[in-house]
Amino acid sequence: MRGAILYAPGDVRVDERDDPKIVEPTDAVIRLSATCVCGSDLWPYRGIEAVDGPSPMGHEYVGIVEEVGSDVRTVKPGQFVIGSFFASDNTCEICKAGYQTSCVHRVPMGTLGAQAEYLRVPLADGTLVATPDVPSDDLLPSLLAASDVLGTGWFGAAAADVRPGKTVAVVGDGAVGLLAVLAARQLGAERIIAMSRHQSRQKLALDFGATDIVTERGDDGVAKMKDLTDGFGAHSVIEAVGTQESMMQAIRSTRPGGHVGYVGVSHDVELPGQELFFSHVHLHGGPAPVRRFLPELIDLIWNRTIDPGKVFDLTLPLDQAAEGYRAMDERRAIKTLLQP
Amino acid sequence: MRGAILYAPGDVRVDERDDPKIVEPTDAVIRLSATCVCGSDLWPYRGIEAVDGPSPMGHEYVGIVEEVGSDVRTVKPGQFVIGSFFASDNTCEICKAGYQTSCVHRVPMGTLGAQAEYLRVPLADGTLVATPDVPSDDLLPSLLAASDVLGTGWFGAAAADVRPGKTVAVVGDGAVGLLAVLAARQLGAERIIAMSRHQSRQKLALDFGATDIVTERGDDGVAKMKDLTDGFGAHSVIEAVGTQESMMQAIRSTRPGGHVGYVGVSHDVELPGQELFFSHVHLHGGPAPVRRFLPELIDLIWNRTIDPGKVFDLTLPLDQAAEGYRAMDERRAIKTLLQP
Repeated sequence: MRGAILYAPGDVRVDERDDPKIVEPTDAVIRLSATCVCGSDLWPYRGIEAVDGPSPMGHEYVGIVEEVGSDVRTVKPGQFVIGSFFASDNTCEICKAGYQTSCVHRVPMGTLGAQAEYLRVPLADGTLVATPDVPSDDLLPSLLAASDVLGTGWFGAAAADVRPGKTVAVVGDGAVGLLAVLAARQLGAERIIAMSRHQSRQKLALDFGATDIVTERGDDGVAKMKDLTDGFGAHSVIEAVGTQESMMQAIRSTRPGGHVGYVGVSHDVELPGQELFFSHVHLHGGPAPVRRFLPELIDLIWNRTIDPGKVFDLTLPLDQAAEGYRAMDERRAIKTLLQP
Repeated sequence: MRGAILYAPGDVRVDERDDPKIVEPTDAVIRLSATCVCGSDLWPYRGIEAVDGPSPMGHEYVGIVEEVGSDVRTVKPGQFVIGSFFASDNTCEICKAGYQTSCVHRVPMGTLGAQAEYLRVPLADGTLVATPDVPSDDLLPSLLAASDVLGTGWFGAAAADVRPGKTVAVVGDGAVGLLAVLAARQLGAERIIAMSRHQSRQKLALDFGATDIVTERGDDGVAKMKDLTDGFGAHSVIEAVGTQESMMQAIRSTRPGGHVGYVGVSHDVELPGQELFFSHVHLHGGPAPVRRFLPELIDLIWNRTIDPGKVFDLTLPLDQAAEGYRAMDERRAIKTLLQP
């Protein structure tokens, strides 16, 4: 089959890869209907994370089940399914508490390479959620968004304790930040302040329910946030970048007793204990347990209540994955959908 | 009047100080019935925090109202009252959310020096809570504990989301850690693991409701915690020290999705962002908003449901404050009560 492989920073190519097969009796193999490039794929693409030999890429996927292992009970060939970036058993104590990305049997999907024609999915019964039927093509982008960026933005909003009546701020205007705006709107936030300097992203943030845009960053962004909130800061701030600057901006934009939900994968971040102590914020985040939210997110998409697929502003055939990476790296695209 | 003054590290003396007077119309002046030495007083006493000229010491107090300013409405002369280490208006938006230690008008009581015969309390209506009557002497230690260490341990347990049925661990066996054990018991924890290497403190932890004692520290302490919890870690961990080692021990002893409540005043702590991200813990803490809990804590003490005053294992006349500091510094005493 064809699949994207990162050979070195900046060098991603679609090459022949071995067809995936059932390895464990709990596996499924799916034929991908759509896949995409993640903001986190850009870390190794940019050489900020080490590239350790040729690596299959991609961890976002929707598709049709081709084959299942002998122990798979609920997932069946022919179903249209969605999974996320960690396979999980969904039965252990940690999964049952809603933290499937810390499942005791978790398998990172990134190493299996979802930017391809086919994908092996371990722990299929725990990992995959089927849609009511095979969806029409126009639903594909939104269902694919649920695989990671929507679920991650949603977890960010949940971790930031977004509730009706609250003032929410979002640091980061990538796909996850934009979908955190959508999540905050769905969860009833009264006011949603999107921090963005890019016009096309500001527009999408407003489409998704943002009520205010702040273009300043760092200390200036914090000062502006305080201005907009009677000097207190927001009740809930969602951090969707993962840098020292963005984390400190999020913490400082939150009022005492408020909540920071952080979902940007942390890179070279050191949080100063004393400032955190006196900030009085709640801090929660990490790799989003998207599996917790998938049934609810699929419902909202299936009923056409939400349209998270709008974050895909570039659609390319899988074979043009390299251009998809380039467009995101150069911020010409928010997110690239790849058609296998 | 007489009051304790820290002149330099290790040099605390009880000297003549000016009698406090009403300065603002919202002030009260109280005659102290009891005061005490806090673990946090040991930071400047040990020279770890700078001592910037002679400093009045102490921020824990109970006593009888002597005089009130012209704007004080609810607090009256003759009442027995308890306040905490920050004066707060208890009416601003931050106070109403339960974070009185971040009140927009807060005043740190430590600078006013509660280890003395009299104390000026700003924002008296917001800060002071009266008991139903003047208490009998045997209740004084417990009521004094409510002024800081009980309220701080209680906030640690609340921040760590302690609930019925949960497994809780406490890092730190000072007065705050021991009273966090008591709080966890009152809040219904099923299992309470106290981390302590000192026999007298272990005994008090067991008195207060601990079910297990772990004597190991650092990585060994974490390994032991995992052993005791099927490899998962505790649901709730209360951190009551404030060092890098204790914070990391708390975070690593918590299961994914669990809660760390940290109340040890943070000294030279830097939290590694990536480890925190993948730990999946909730983190909350800071200077305890004791005022939030005072009415409930006073009830529990008044009804003799709890006896937090047991943490005072040394009682001295105010004039012997120096020996009270020394005994705590050398860990001969858990906490020293001073009688003015």
